[in-house]
Amino acid sequence: MRILAKDVAQAAREQQTDGVSDGGGAAGEVELKGWVHRIRDMGGVVFIVLRDRSGLVQLVLDKDPALTLESVISVKGTPALNEKAPGGAEIKVQALECIARAAGDLPYQVNGDPGKTGLEALLDNRGLSLRSPKIKAIFKVQATVIEAFSAYLRSQDFTEIKTSKLVGSSTEGGSELFEVAYFDRKVYLAQSPQFYKETMVASGMERVFEVAPAYRAEKHDTPRHLNEYVSLDVEMGFIDSEKDLIELEKGLLTHIFEETARKNSAELALWNAAVPNADAVSQSPTVRYEEAVKIAGAESAKMGGGRIFDITPEAERFLCSWSLREYGSDLLFVNEFPRRYRPFYTYPLDASRTMSFDALFRGLEITTGGRRQHDYQAFLDVLPKFGLKAENFTNYLDLLKYGCPPHGGFAIGCERLTSRILGIANVKEASLFPRDRRRVEP
Amino acid sequence: MRILAKDVAQAAREQQTDGVSDGGGAAGEVELKGWVHRIRDMGGVVFIVLRDRSGLVQLVLDKDPALTLESVISVKGTPALNEKAPGGAEIKVQALECIARAAGDLPYQVNGDPGKTGLEALLDNRGLSLRSPKIKAIFKVQATVIEAFSAYLRSQDFTEIKTSKLVGSSTEGGSELFEVAYFDRKVYLAQSPQFYKETMVASGMERVFEVAPAYRAEKHDTPRHLNEYVSLDVEMGFIDSEKDLIELEKGLLTHIFEETARKNSAELALWNAAVPNADAVSQSPTVRYEEAVKIAGAESAKMGGGRIFDITPEAERFLCSWSLREYGSDLLFVNEFPRRYRPFYTYPLDASRTMSFDALFRGLEITTGGRRQHDYQAFLDVLPKFGLKAENFTNYLDLLKYGCPPHGGFAIGCERLTSRILGIANVKEASLFPRDRRRVEP
Repeated sequence: MRILAKDVAQAAREQQTDGVSDGGGAAGEVELKGWVHRIRDMGGVVFIVLRDRSGLVQLVLDKDPALTLESVISVKGTPALNEKAPGGAEIKVQALECIARAAGDLPYQVNGDPGKTGLEALLDNRGLSLRSPKIKAIFKVQATVIEAFSAYLRSQDFTEIKTSKLVGSSTEGGSELFEVAYFDRKVYLAQSPQFYKETMVASGMERVFEVAPAYRAEKHDTPRHLNEYVSLDVEMGFIDSEKDLIELEKGLLTHIFEETARKNSAELALWNAAVPNADAVSQSPTVRYEEAVKIAGAESAKMGGGRIFDITPEAERFLCSWSLREYGSDLLFVNEFPRRYRPFYTYPLDASRTMSFDALFRGLEITTGGRRQHDYQAFLDVLPKFGLKAENFTNYLDLLKYGCPPHGGFAIGCERLTSRILGIANVKEASLFPRDRRRVEP
Repeated sequence: MRILAKDVAQAAREQQTDGVSDGGGAAGEVELKGWVHRIRDMGGVVFIVLRDRSGLVQLVLDKDPALTLESVISVKGTPALNEKAPGGAEIKVQALECIARAAGDLPYQVNGDPGKTGLEALLDNRGLSLRSPKIKAIFKVQATVIEAFSAYLRSQDFTEIKTSKLVGSSTEGGSELFEVAYFDRKVYLAQSPQFYKETMVASGMERVFEVAPAYRAEKHDTPRHLNEYVSLDVEMGFIDSEKDLIELEKGLLTHIFEETARKNSAELALWNAAVPNADAVSQSPTVRYEEAVKIAGAESAKMGGGRIFDITPEAERFLCSWSLREYGSDLLFVNEFPRRYRPFYTYPLDASRTMSFDALFRGLEITTGGRRQHDYQAFLDVLPKFGLKAENFTNYLDLLKYGCPPHGGFAIGCERLTSRILGIANVKEASLFPRDRRRVEP
């Protein structure tokens, strides 16, 4: 019976206690399967570190099996406690089979420190760099983020939806879209499920979420952008303002952080990272846009930096360090963005401001959201102010024409949130197979 | 405080019991919000059926509020038990506010029977047809399918992944791909996450799943095809044959059916549908391809039908009715497909057969899967037999070169499974915003 690396110490303890055979094979014999992570030949005794989905464990052999690193093996042996072994236990191997021999010309050192390899090389050798425990940890955390996001929203009576990523035209007005040859016409990859999630709110589902890819044909290559990313989308009906959404996101992030702490302590440790606790999230301030620009400016001046006129990436970093100092939280919300900075469908607070917000976390914007215009006539009236024509928004107008409640929502960039949890500098590292202007492989 | 339609009867009972005020407003007053589903003016008294995310409830008013169907309203009133009201309770309305008035020219009758509207009209008016309780039920069930799929696999130590849908080339050899203009080059929408999920198994995650869109540029328009669908993908390492995968899928489907029965009894009732129980799933037979063709042929002959040479859609229906009659289950598995019918990377059982399978459920193929070739040299050797060149598979070869365990997986078509659970004839009805050759809107 196969056991996992993480269970070897327990198997060794059980064996010591009851000393009984498990019925099949030699007394206390167990089987493990995995990859050859490290080989150390001490002459007379050979140590192999085996890596499986659960972690690492040391194998002890009395002769050299002539293996290559990263080969897939199956071993049978006896678990034994050993204080000097990683994890406090090891396997004394009786039999070893090589299931798949790895070629000897590994282009990437899986058992090394991935921090010493440049990003491009990590991505060029993605199949191998993902074998590094520290890199795999990123995606174990990301899986928890997605699971916790979904679980929390279900607990709040949200329904998961899956909407089309092929759209005939763009809600946002057509910029930064990838074009798809769709039979005899052109369509586009969706930048966001905005229209569809609003449609589902208006359909009476009221509260919906979606986890799906989103696409931005942005040419610039920065540590904060991906051309394809996983968007964690939320939309809900019957809200009064963006403040309802900020409260929802606080609850959501609290749950995501708690689940990450509970399930991924090993992965957090590999990155020397910690998540904010519930108190820190609840103390996170909400700052109006105008005030946020002033605060960032004052912080910049203190640091001898330049003037700040907008919530630039630099301003996001200043705001998070300010919030950490003043509120004990490097999560904060900026609301009431000016109308000129927000899409036309954003609900106005007054002539110049909107019921919209961003969430900033550890120096990076991770969320944009807001209340949307739900009134048919008000929507029609605002279009010309943004240079838009009603005939390009017939779907939207149909949505609002037949009874649409006040509503709003937001989206969390999954890779951005993952990267901020672990302290990863470039968001591409938090995407399994990132796409940028030059990279579409592997 | 807002309550939901489904909670009105309980609120009425509580009020009868303790007769106390809830503190705010009139004694026992509650608030409800939702859509005007139906209006019946009896002269002197007006009945409105209100629809919210939880269901329907009757409102009683003593004068006509002059509302239109589908308008969004908020009402305050007193819950009261009434055996004649749907659900056994109603709201005696004290105050009503119209939040969003619907235009009077509804192009689709939301409170009618959607079965009386043709599919094209249902899809043309998607924002409105999704308001029909019976249609919304499809997507409540679909949400359960996705949740239960993910939960079961997590319980078996699978990790959720999100992989790129933009690929430089196709694993399957290039047919039926949608082309995307990606900056200064062409890429394609992924037909499946096949290569990526195999990469993640080989990376040491061993067991992975993904829920994501998949694309097929098939021109034909049938009740069983979508050009964009939600693929429920699974891949696992260290399997012996496709039989391990069939066992996994049986456990998975059992959990999906049990969760659907538990959470969606109201939705199943609207469709007059029931899910198979655990016994039926466990009794589902596995039939070899050659035998399955013979069985389908014999069934066809009995019905006076034509000869059967392959597992055609007609043969799928014959096999499921045979399985239901002989094994009490209209789920069955067909394995050992001939090599010529399976992709080149399918693991051979012998010279002519493969370790592959399909799952058929209620007359429709819902799953294709199998063990994959994990041996580098065997993979290289098979390429020329399929007319393929090694230089087009460098990513795949890199994956196998450095230690890849025996592995395999499968994919369940989410819309197909949903449609079979509810007895929906056309798979497009089980897609929120389906895409076919002519339809990219809404």
